[in-house]
Formats: sequence, structure tokens, C-alpha cells
Amino acid sequence: MTPPYIHQLRVRYHECDAQGIVFNAHHFAYFDMTLTELWREAFGSYNAMLDDYGTDVMVKDAQATFHAPPRFDDLLDVEMTIEKLGNSSMVSTFEEKRDGDVLVSGRLVHVFVDPATWKKQDIPANVRARLEPYVG
Amino acid sequence: MTPPYIHQLRVRYHECDAQGIVFNAHHFAYFDMTLTELWREAFGSYNAMLDDYGTDVMVKDAQATFHAPPRFDDLLDVEMTIEKLGNSSMVSTFEEKRDGDVLVSGRLVHVFVDPATWKKQDIPANVRARLEPYVG
Amino acid sequence: MTPPYIHQLRVRYHECDAQGIVFNAHHFAYFDMTLTELWREAFGSYNAMLDDYGTDVMVKDAQATFHAPPRFDDLLDVEMTIEKLGNSSMVSTFEEKRDGDVLVSGRLVHVFVDPATWKKQDIPANVRARLEPYVG
Amino acid sequence: MTPPYIHQLRVRYHECDAQGIVFNAHHFAYFDMTLTELWREAFGSYNAMLDDYGTDVMVKDAQATFHAPPRFDDLLDVEMTIEKLGNSSMVSTFEEKRDGDVLVSGRLVHVFVDPATWKKQDIPANVRARLEPYVG
Repeated sequence: MTPPYIHQLRVRYHECDAQGIVFNAHHFAYFDMTLTELWREAFGSYNAMLDDYGTDVMVKDAQATFHAPPRFDDLLDVEMTIEKLGNSSMVSTFEEKRDGDVLVSGRLVHVFVDPATWKKQDIPANVRARLEPYVG
Repeated sequence: MTPPYIHQLRVRYHECDAQGIVFNAHHFAYFDMTLTELWREAFGSYNAMLDDYGTDVMVKDAQATFHAPPRFDDLLDVEMTIEKLGNSSMVSTFEEKRDGDVLVSGRLVHVFVDPATWKKQDIPANVRARLEPYVG
Repeated sequence: MTPPYIHQLRVRYHECDAQGIVFNAHHFAYFDMTLTELWREAFGSYNAMLDDYGTDVMVKDAQATFHAPPRFDDLLDVEMTIEKLGNSSMVSTFEEKRDGDVLVSGRLVHVFVDPATWKKQDIPANVRARLEPYVG
Repeated sequence: MTPPYIHQLRVRYHECDAQGIVFNAHHFAYFDMTLTELWREAFGSYNAMLDDYGTDVMVKDAQATFHAPPRFDDLLDVEMTIEKLGNSSMVSTFEEKRDGDVLVSGRLVHVFVDPATWKKQDIPANVRARLEPYVG
């Protein structure tokens, strides 16, 4: 495969506010859902990552820029690329596209932690190996 | 005290949909938040109910009737009355009022469970004693 | 087609609460999303129903019974059947199934309204014709 | 008054995910709710800003850094300071504090628009005058 990883989703009615557009906070949920699907492709599932690979992630930083507003019923392609795999952190970039136009772009920084203690840990080698195909 | 227990809340912008009114699902969150505040008054907090009283609840049934739509920035009084304390269940009724008008009425059925096993349990005597003042 | 209408969805991480199960209010959003997809099949889209068929709906009553808890990453089939088309109202029933097991069942009552005035209206004949295939 | 503007809120049960902490997207709703309260203090309400002052805002950029996780039932002080009022934009910074500790910090960039056309507009003079007390 070649990055980006793409997850398609449809904007839900209740995700749109009185302005008729997606409320800004929901875009961070869109990013998270796309990551969940990438975990599924890479590890089987998020839970498999915890149970079989012994690692979890926490969001350290989140950012989004809004270029144009997605609306109810829009079909969006959320494109995700891992920008950088550090020792214990991962930087990902996102683009939400409708018919090829970028409506929202963003960036998440995750830290890898021990699922039991939530202490920062180095990315396990087998986790890194499975994520490297998504590095852009 | 005399029932109902009243929790006041303000309608948030993102809880309103493109029709400009509170999306129906959020009213069940309003009921839940009111229950959380009743737990606080009765037990100290929801977590205290789990830790100190050894009981938890799960929602078995939820119902709401919509008479008139709450809107963004409305200040609502959510009134809760425990209608019935059974052996292991609790029936509660709710009314959301704006300036005294009932906009939404509803009803939740909870089952008490062991916090560790989630198996149904009889309502502990000290829990029942603390909830009885809220029975209407 | 034969009822029920089925919409498949995946439980999102942030729809699950600290108990690890879908928070009860979200099930009413699941019902609504399924209805949105039925509108799409029947009318082209919800917006087409408003613009081309001149009718809108408001939720009058919502109810759900929780048999077993859906969890994060579960794939759910939400089955919807129109139970009754009245003069100006529609009663729908829902079942959320995982691997054939019913986890949640529910019922929504909608009232048809004029999209401009939100006054109750009789279900337009061409709307009724397009909904009748979904009556169980 | 002296900045920051402070809005206190309580973390809701359903805002916490299976990790037991506030899901990251909700923090952007917390920022937005704090802004709504600042609008109330400055203009009477958000709707008054639209109707009486003839201006609206759209979020152009949103960012948050997560230092420590807020949990269910936490009482948070969300502190907001307007960092900069440009010709047509406003940069705001936020800190979510629990017992004085900063758990989350963030930043929103808004653009002022004409409420009818959603076209960018210069900040009206009387709007600027009412916002200047919040500039840090």
C-alpha cells in the first residue's frame, strides 16, 4: 500500500449545528475514527493492538484548519498519513475531502503508552514495522 | 426535601441540529446528567455510590415525549422524581421545563447491578434509604 | 423490497462510556441515522424529501429497551420497519442486532410537518406511496 | 474586568470514553461553550451578537495540547483570553484547570462574517469595543 490511508464516512444529521455545518469538534472524532480503521488494517483492531501488541496511544496534541464547511449527508474521504514515527510518538496528518476538494486539514500527535500503567513507552518493534507502510 | 429533584442546565450550541432545536438523543443525556446530580446529593457522587455503597446501575429502558422544542441557550429545569423503587430496579420520571412550561417528559428504568460482575442485585438497604426521599 | 430496512454501522470509540458500552442516548442517534438512509432509498435523500416532496418530520416520541450492551468496534445491523402510517404520523420500530442477536429494540413516533411553518400536515400522497413498501 | 474570562463546567459521564477520560474532541466543545458565555457577558447573548450587532463568527483553526486527562465529574475552570483582535479575525487562548493545574491548553482562530452571506467582514467598531476588555 501507499499512503494516505483513506476512510470514507457520511456526515450525520446531528453532527451539524444550527449553522447547518459540521460542528468543529466533530472533525477530531472523524480523525480518530480514521485512525481506528488504520489500526484495524495494521493490527486487526484497536483492541488487538492493546492485547496482542501490548501498546496503547494517548492524544498529546490536536489541530485542525477549516477551509470549507462539510454539510449534512456529505460523503467525505478522510485521508491519513503518518508524518513521523518517533521513539515513542507518532505525528499524523489528515485531510477531509469532498469530491477531491480539501475541506478540513489537521494533525494529531499521539504518544505510545503501556496499556496497564499509561506510562510512555518506546514504540515496540513489531508495532513500528506494521505502521511503517503508512509513513508518507 | 420533597421531590422532584431539580437540575438546571443550559442548552449548548452543538446540541442543536440544523432545525435549530435540541437533537432528540441529547435529552437522554440531560436525564442522565440530572441523575448524576441526584447521586451526588444522595451519595456524595456516582463514584461514591460504586465505591462506598457497592452498587451500580444500568439503563434498561428509556422513553421521552417531545411537546415543544428547547432551543440553543435555553435554560432548562430538569425535574426528576423516582416513581418506584422495586427489588432491584428503579423507575424515574423526568420533565424538562422552560419558564414553567413542560417541553419534554420522559422515563428511565434502571437495574441495580454489582459493580464488579454487572449481575443484577437487590437494592442495598442503605442505598434504598438514601433514595427514598426522592420517591414521589 | 420487504421490510425491515437494514442499515449497518460500526460503534465508534467515543460513543462508548467508562462502562465500555454504548451510552444509551447514542442509540437514538443510531435510529435516526437508519431513518436517514431509508429516506435516501425512498426519496433520494432527506433534503430531497424536504425540497421535492414538501414535507419534513419531527420526533414526537422515542423509546428504547436495552437487552445487552453493544461495545466499541461492534458491527451492528439496525433494522427498521414502519409499523404504521397514520394521517400525519409515522410509527417505526427498530432492532439493533449483532450476529443476529437483538441488543436494543426501540420505537420512534414522527409527525409530518410543513417544512416552512413546522405545522402538522397530512402525509402527502406521493410520500405515502414511497413509504408504503417499508410498512411491515 | 481583567482577562481571563472564566467559565466553570462539570465533566459529563458520556463525555468520557472507555479510557475513563474526556474524549479529546469534547475539549473543543468546552472551548466553544466558554466563548458562548463570553458572548453573553459582552453582548447579552450569541443571538444578540447576530441580531443586534450584525456579526457572526466561524472557526478557522482549532488546536489543543493535552497535559493531563480530565475525568468524569471533575469541575473544570476554562479560562479564555483574547490574544489578538485583527481586522476580521480573533485569536483566543484557553486553559482548562482543575484545582489550579492546567490539564488542557488550546487556541481558536475565528473569522468574523456577515450573518446573512457568511462573507468575511471587518470587526464592527461596537463589537471591537465590547471585546477589547477581554484582550490579554
